[in-house]
Amino acid sequence: MSQVRGNLFILSAPSGAGKSSLINALLQQHSDMQVSVSHTTRAPRPGEQNAKHYHFVSEAEFKTLIDNDDFFEWAQVFDNYYGTSKAAIEQQLANGIDVFLDIDWQGARQVRELAPDVTTIFILPPSKAELENRLTNRGQDSADVIAGRMAKAQSETSHFDEYDYLVVNDDFDTALAEIETIVKAKRLSISAQRVKHNELIHDLLK
Amino acid sequence: MSQVRGNLFILSAPSGAGKSSLINALLQQHSDMQVSVSHTTRAPRPGEQNAKHYHFVSEAEFKTLIDNDDFFEWAQVFDNYYGTSKAAIEQQLANGIDVFLDIDWQGARQVRELAPDVTTIFILPPSKAELENRLTNRGQDSADVIAGRMAKAQSETSHFDEYDYLVVNDDFDTALAEIETIVKAKRLSISAQRVKHNELIHDLLK
Repeated sequence: MSQVRGNLFILSAPSGAGKSSLINALLQQHSDMQVSVSHTTRAPRPGEQNAKHYHFVSEAEFKTLIDNDDFFEWAQVFDNYYGTSKAAIEQQLANGIDVFLDIDWQGARQVRELAPDVTTIFILPPSKAELENRLTNRGQDSADVIAGRMAKAQSETSHFDEYDYLVVNDDFDTALAEIETIVKAKRLSISAQRVKHNELIHDLLK
Repeated sequence: MSQVRGNLFILSAPSGAGKSSLINALLQQHSDMQVSVSHTTRAPRPGEQNAKHYHFVSEAEFKTLIDNDDFFEWAQVFDNYYGTSKAAIEQQLANGIDVFLDIDWQGARQVRELAPDVTTIFILPPSKAELENRLTNRGQDSADVIAGRMAKAQSETSHFDEYDYLVVNDDFDTALAEIETIVKAKRLSISAQRVKHNELIHDLLK
């Protein structure tokens, strides 16, 4: 069996769908899955470490990376830039790691252009009421901020049908198992298997 | 949750890959999976029952079905005709049954034209030696017949890369679990999930 490249996945979701917890659980349980670490110009939040949570760079550095075509996708969100480095992902994939991009629908569109074989997954909360509940229970924001988040969640959700797969995060373990199923199925796709079983195929056809 | 249509799958393999045993095990373990029953003009073999193994019809009847555009796909193999009825499959899918078509690469091409959302799976034996072994151990055929089968197996195998998924039937239970993974993943696809979770999506977007 030949060294198999990892597969590239995009996970998108409205805020409050539980995407981060699902990703954390996935990475904890599978050493052959990683997230890509994004670059950003925003300031680190308490507890965030450089190169682990983000590569924190200046706006000038970020713009140089853009000019050098070093990003898979990048976006400006308010005053901050966010981007996904091509080089880092290529290295992970070449090592057989399945890489998850935690990006929104705009980033997903950019990545699809450059990597048509990417597998895209959209995660939904189980109900609008539960979404409101989750966004409220964070207890850190005003009603206005929550209403703004609900509107943003709705806007993100409106792009669900641009994705390959839809996972509803009602029961956490079920949602986790469903993402694992999608990852396993991708490993069985002809593009992955023809590399893995190259010798067998060669043998059968000679 | 709305009534979800079943999904359509094609399973193809060279003779000797173990496809029939895998399909039988799948159907035994999942009441929501069925195979389509094909029409054929060939004579029933000992033990074969009409409407269970095949719909056995005359050549005249078969040609009438062709003229009426009643087949999803059909093929002439030597002197016999084989075909898959559209009506039967549509009924199964409408009832939420996942339907497996046990057809070759030529049939697969025809079905893909009519049903682009079909999921196609190709099954391979673990090695050429094992394939030879399996075809020989049947003990019913001459060396010439076996050589002919090996050539036919190679010809069928040469079309593996027209399929979405590749499963290598080395360990039977592993191969079975892999087919189940592909079926489960298809149920998570946006086309299936948007029907199943129609109310949720409507709720989140209103």
